[in-house]
Amino acid sequence: MPLALLPPIIVEPLVRAALIEDLGRAGDITTDAIAPADLAIAGAFVSRQAGVIAGLDLARLAFTLMDPKIAFEIERPDGAAVGAGETVARVSGSAQGILGAERVALNFLSRLSGVASATAALVASVAGTKARIVCTRKTTPTFRAIEKYAVRAGGGANHRFGLDDAVLIKDNHVAVAGGIVPAIRRAKAHVGHLVKIEVEVDTLAQLDEALAEGVDAVLLDNMDLDDLRRAVDRIAGRAISEASGRVTPQSAPAIAATGVDLISVGWLTHSAPILDVGLDLAC
Amino acid sequence: MPLALLPPIIVEPLVRAALIEDLGRAGDITTDAIAPADLAIAGAFVSRQAGVIAGLDLARLAFTLMDPKIAFEIERPDGAAVGAGETVARVSGSAQGILGAERVALNFLSRLSGVASATAALVASVAGTKARIVCTRKTTPTFRAIEKYAVRAGGGANHRFGLDDAVLIKDNHVAVAGGIVPAIRRAKAHVGHLVKIEVEVDTLAQLDEALAEGVDAVLLDNMDLDDLRRAVDRIAGRAISEASGRVTPQSAPAIAATGVDLISVGWLTHSAPILDVGLDLAC
Amino acid sequence: MPLALLPPIIVEPLVRAALIEDLGRAGDITTDAIAPADLAIAGAFVSRQAGVIAGLDLARLAFTLMDPKIAFEIERPDGAAVGAGETVARVSGSAQGILGAERVALNFLSRLSGVASATAALVASVAGTKARIVCTRKTTPTFRAIEKYAVRAGGGANHRFGLDDAVLIKDNHVAVAGGIVPAIRRAKAHVGHLVKIEVEVDTLAQLDEALAEGVDAVLLDNMDLDDLRRAVDRIAGRAISEASGRVTPQSAPAIAATGVDLISVGWLTHSAPILDVGLDLAC
Amino acid sequence: MPLALLPPIIVEPLVRAALIEDLGRAGDITTDAIAPADLAIAGAFVSRQAGVIAGLDLARLAFTLMDPKIAFEIERPDGAAVGAGETVARVSGSAQGILGAERVALNFLSRLSGVASATAALVASVAGTKARIVCTRKTTPTFRAIEKYAVRAGGGANHRFGLDDAVLIKDNHVAVAGGIVPAIRRAKAHVGHLVKIEVEVDTLAQLDEALAEGVDAVLLDNMDLDDLRRAVDRIAGRAISEASGRVTPQSAPAIAATGVDLISVGWLTHSAPILDVGLDLAC
Amino acid sequence: MPLALLPPIIVEPLVRAALIEDLGRAGDITTDAIAPADLAIAGAFVSRQAGVIAGLDLARLAFTLMDPKIAFEIERPDGAAVGAGETVARVSGSAQGILGAERVALNFLSRLSGVASATAALVASVAGTKARIVCTRKTTPTFRAIEKYAVRAGGGANHRFGLDDAVLIKDNHVAVAGGIVPAIRRAKAHVGHLVKIEVEVDTLAQLDEALAEGVDAVLLDNMDLDDLRRAVDRIAGRAISEASGRVTPQSAPAIAATGVDLISVGWLTHSAPILDVGLDLAC
Amino acid sequence: MPLALLPPIIVEPLVRAALIEDLGRAGDITTDAIAPADLAIAGAFVSRQAGVIAGLDLARLAFTLMDPKIAFEIERPDGAAVGAGETVARVSGSAQGILGAERVALNFLSRLSGVASATAALVASVAGTKARIVCTRKTTPTFRAIEKYAVRAGGGANHRFGLDDAVLIKDNHVAVAGGIVPAIRRAKAHVGHLVKIEVEVDTLAQLDEALAEGVDAVLLDNMDLDDLRRAVDRIAGRAISEASGRVTPQSAPAIAATGVDLISVGWLTHSAPILDVGLDLAC
Repeated sequence: MPLALLPPIIVEPLVRAALIEDLGRAGDITTDAIAPADLAIAGAFVSRQAGVIAGLDLARLAFTLMDPKIAFEIERPDGAAVGAGETVARVSGSAQGILGAERVALNFLSRLSGVASATAALVASVAGTKARIVCTRKTTPTFRAIEKYAVRAGGGANHRFGLDDAVLIKDNHVAVAGGIVPAIRRAKAHVGHLVKIEVEVDTLAQLDEALAEGVDAVLLDNMDLDDLRRAVDRIAGRAISEASGRVTPQSAPAIAATGVDLISVGWLTHSAPILDVGLDLAC
Repeated sequence: MPLALLPPIIVEPLVRAALIEDLGRAGDITTDAIAPADLAIAGAFVSRQAGVIAGLDLARLAFTLMDPKIAFEIERPDGAAVGAGETVARVSGSAQGILGAERVALNFLSRLSGVASATAALVASVAGTKARIVCTRKTTPTFRAIEKYAVRAGGGANHRFGLDDAVLIKDNHVAVAGGIVPAIRRAKAHVGHLVKIEVEVDTLAQLDEALAEGVDAVLLDNMDLDDLRRAVDRIAGRAISEASGRVTPQSAPAIAATGVDLISVGWLTHSAPILDVGLDLAC
Repeated sequence: MPLALLPPIIVEPLVRAALIEDLGRAGDITTDAIAPADLAIAGAFVSRQAGVIAGLDLARLAFTLMDPKIAFEIERPDGAAVGAGETVARVSGSAQGILGAERVALNFLSRLSGVASATAALVASVAGTKARIVCTRKTTPTFRAIEKYAVRAGGGANHRFGLDDAVLIKDNHVAVAGGIVPAIRRAKAHVGHLVKIEVEVDTLAQLDEALAEGVDAVLLDNMDLDDLRRAVDRIAGRAISEASGRVTPQSAPAIAATGVDLISVGWLTHSAPILDVGLDLAC
Repeated sequence: MPLALLPPIIVEPLVRAALIEDLGRAGDITTDAIAPADLAIAGAFVSRQAGVIAGLDLARLAFTLMDPKIAFEIERPDGAAVGAGETVARVSGSAQGILGAERVALNFLSRLSGVASATAALVASVAGTKARIVCTRKTTPTFRAIEKYAVRAGGGANHRFGLDDAVLIKDNHVAVAGGIVPAIRRAKAHVGHLVKIEVEVDTLAQLDEALAEGVDAVLLDNMDLDDLRRAVDRIAGRAISEASGRVTPQSAPAIAATGVDLISVGWLTHSAPILDVGLDLAC
Repeated sequence: MPLALLPPIIVEPLVRAALIEDLGRAGDITTDAIAPADLAIAGAFVSRQAGVIAGLDLARLAFTLMDPKIAFEIERPDGAAVGAGETVARVSGSAQGILGAERVALNFLSRLSGVASATAALVASVAGTKARIVCTRKTTPTFRAIEKYAVRAGGGANHRFGLDDAVLIKDNHVAVAGGIVPAIRRAKAHVGHLVKIEVEVDTLAQLDEALAEGVDAVLLDNMDLDDLRRAVDRIAGRAISEASGRVTPQSAPAIAATGVDLISVGWLTHSAPILDVGLDLAC
Repeated sequence: MPLALLPPIIVEPLVRAALIEDLGRAGDITTDAIAPADLAIAGAFVSRQAGVIAGLDLARLAFTLMDPKIAFEIERPDGAAVGAGETVARVSGSAQGILGAERVALNFLSRLSGVASATAALVASVAGTKARIVCTRKTTPTFRAIEKYAVRAGGGANHRFGLDDAVLIKDNHVAVAGGIVPAIRRAKAHVGHLVKIEVEVDTLAQLDEALAEGVDAVLLDNMDLDDLRRAVDRIAGRAISEASGRVTPQSAPAIAATGVDLISVGWLTHSAPILDVGLDLAC
């Protein structure tokens, strides 16, 4: 199946809030002063860099929320790899609407494309292995849904969407429970049948405890390559294995080569630079 | 005057929305399963890197919105330069409240500290010149107020907060108006007496037109160092001069040496990596 | 672990909206007319029926949102079985605040206690078997979190909280995909590693297909007791088994005796009558 | 006049919130995985039971808020009595939109139809008398407008919509005021000329006091049939008479036969079971 | 009973929105620049004119929403008549909080006191008659609750709060229905037992029709004094009589002398000037 | 350039909230009772007084939010001077939609037209001078954007939109800072390059201090005409001059004749009476 888009009802409130933030109380006073109300213009969204596009529906919403008569045509859909200079979408309609929503549209598009591009680079770096690149909960507050979507657009997979859709037992939980085993047992007793349980382990001894108890996935946190390999051996398919900790495109291939199922990377959503996309108007 | 904090009434809705996003419909099921309701814990927010802190009030709000009884003590206030390993704040209270709000608190704190740290690095790079580092409207949608605050925490200054609080005539506006002169005249006729007018110019010829017409500031876009120097000469104090375009800590000193008043950098708010801050619990 | 309460930040908006709905534009005109502003009263929430209590925190919030000085003491916590005539909580404070919020407090408390009581009755009916009683997504719109909480208060377990936290392949999805096997394969290819997959099957033949493909859970929809027994045999622990379809306290024991893991009941949240709770004032 | 529909502007926020609740952060992951984006389907809403339909406009809104291109044709309008197996509406459009909004549409439709059906049954039970069936404020929090609408759809009439649109002096108010007479006098002195005043009386002596003072309506609470008859006699048309307390379809005819004007029933909105309505897709 | 205050839960959202509107994205930059964060100040709210005060609770909320530590002491409560120069309340606390919320507090207080003062003037002008001064639905959009409260503070009474709490049949409704009689009959058949019905009549002939049909109140629209007197005679206590149309303090006494029960005045809420109240700081 | 309209995305939430306020929980019960659902009507908005129109887009929104099929045709656009009896717009569509939204549409239109008309009268009174009429922050809370728009529609100009878009140093700030000079210096050190600084001065001595320090504008507060003339002389074009304090159409010409650049008037937005506009239906 191709990339599934987010329902507009989920993203519209965020785009609307972004427009209201930028328009403030007086609106776009520069364009109001300069552009006649009946002036129509057209333009092209052009990527200044090679990368992967994500967020076109949010960009479109920025324009149509300003003025439903603005047309927005997608040339390269979300998830597409684009080269520098490539046109990804075209917009046409009232100058006041287009210039007033331009920055909001670009802010969403360039940010989400940045996440998608960073993901795609990491995915490419582990090509040929079974390792999948996954994101974390280190997302921009209130952007969880759209940033996780951008990760998917870049070919990555999603980890938890929140504190409520899966159990992830971390070191603090283990400390509170007094050990990995009681932590896992409490979790199993607490959650419903459709909730998976993952446990963070820092050592192979902890890993053995978790595997003996039985969990869906283990997060191998900051292990070196040797330990990762040993961990994969011990797991032997009894749980999904996830490596995490300071992953870069440089280090990812070696990590993937250890045989882990997943490599999780907070950097994708908390520190990836934007993809530089601009709007070239044909006035 | 020291850094002025943002009024809580401005930032509370965003922190609240972030908590609701992370808690979802079922809340923190891991902590609910493992931590007794009456268990109290304490911890320290520690910066893993050197940088400048920003966002402590948002972190505090994340905890107090979860549980008003959680205590949060600031050791190094927003705007402070911290070293790797330094404690910036301490939190204590219910384990369920602290573990449930931890990620939201860290997501705000690390992101805003990242903006402040990137700003501070650029500010340091132009020390000894009169140039100030300023941000742009290339911010995270709905984060305008807090990201511009983080820029101030890092020692930078703010550009426009929106489309409505100053006029910035860009190339597209010039094209629509049929020239810089009519664009400036229309803007002057339109706006109130407390609104400043800045014009983007790409060439020295455009600069001369703008100066002849009279504006508050000129944005010297993507000019090389020679043209920047010539522009500063021609302006001769008649307007504020702002240089923009692909500024880095490496290129900033030379740009500042041209004598411009301001150097604007979109990167501060759209692509600065987070400052790695963690919460070390003493369970 | 005892029942974990919902974070107030999740439920406060709903309680607030309920108060605003009832107060309308003019507030409680009867009490305004009759009760002096400084009159203090006290009262007891008394269950008129035997049942299980749920929603005391929402009742408390109704009062404290009206007037933070109102005191609310819980005598029998959420999840407790109470007899007819038993006092579950006490309230004291301003007459205007208590009378103005009384109906909202009771509407939440009696409704959620109704869900908890109905759940507890079903749970009791299958005591001695391994079957757990689980709810569905047939909840009151916007009440998902609190009704699922009430199910937990009654001793039941929760099914999916929404369309996004687990895959449930229903007959329509099978039809769209052209069979159970392609449906399961598409789902596995699509979702992240912490998402479980359940499939609804109507026949034992479909069950075999699902088990061969491998799923986390199977929903045995509207099967008779013989087929349920056969299904449990064939599953042989390879998946969680869930029976659904017109479950009542009368039919539940026999269903549970087939050996299924779960019995899901929409009735708990869409049709359970309230538990009759009243507020007896000591004026 | 036929049943007047609710203005969409009143109900849209609730339907929108319900969709967002169900879609969560990731949307309908099952349908996203399985149904191609361009697949169109059609289906029929079929009542599995005899009853009275209410809520079709909310069901329609659920679909059109998901996807404005979905068509929804009503065959049996709100207020219509339908038989088991009867089609009440048809829907057609994108599979992703229809399957994603199906549960929300059904949750509204089945719940409101349940209220309408319960009302209609009570109304039928008192046919031939002058008694009207009315609802109370014991409604689902935030559902006041739509549940009272469903009562009208079922042939019932509405009591107060909130604390602010009429005075209802209850036993607690009487206690606070020190008697029925001062309570009524304070209410008359307080309210505007378009606000009616109703008083709850538990005894015939209280009734006499209220009638002597003059009120618009009297609520005869939990009186037996003899007292109800005597009360109707004494009122003699000087006020509207309302009987309340544990009304069922079995007890209603006898209560109506006492000659009361109104019979109020909290059960209609707090405990009526849903009407079982399903969506049969023709994939 | 003294004036009943509005529940804070009703007015808080409006005060909060007003503060956010004024603070914008950057907050109070003047005070931030000039006042140290730890500077405390105190001040007095002083009425510059004689009038009646209303809105002190909203003013208080403006300060406490900015900073819960600000103290606000009321000296002359809502509904009190004050002279020019009189202090109505005192505020003390942080300079940043007080100066930041000052304008919002004054905007609410002066506006609502203006409504109360205009009402009190009209009420005084008809002293000695039985006529009450009532407001209309010509209120500031979204201010219905607080402006009607201000009318009560000024000694007036309230008309409908909205389209839903009483029937008011106007000329357009009569035209649509084809006459006053069918309009009244349709209304009676439609509404619940706690809803009053008022009819606007322009002539004595229409009045006779309405009285014959039976209504709760008649709105005598734009009648001259002679017709008002005749109308009151004909009504003879069978309905409440309300005069409306261009009422001023000058014309009100003569209108009241006709014997009408109510005089309704849109001007109170749509055009009353503010009461000039200022905040005198003692820095 | 003609008057620039406000983007609908800015004003829609306010119009929506106003409709919800008026419709309440039950909607327009009078029209529901009387007007058949399929009845179409048409009407004209007619100004009963001479004045200047503002707010037609809000009136249109009131209708289209109720029913998107209602047509609304503008005959005299915002900013147009109209005579008594002149038609400014026409509406046609469903009776239920038009009658249900009529009051909200009129409340916005008459209020904003009142502001525009009051502004236009003042503007006319100073015709022939260079003085511009400007508004203040003494606006209806949450109406800042639309009331400032109405001022522009009347030919006036706008002062600050909030506390955040310009510095205005008032007497309290001067007192806090210990003098005008330190206040100005702190402000200059604090704000960005696109923020103007205005200082309120009460005496010519203060004016000299402010001019020596250099500011963008001076607010000459409550000066008599002689002092205003002297102030204008001393300013000599070095700053924008603004006169304020009890301005009326009577006093404005003399104030304008002193040569000031601006005359600011709080009365325009806090006390201007409405322009009487009505809707004449052709049933």
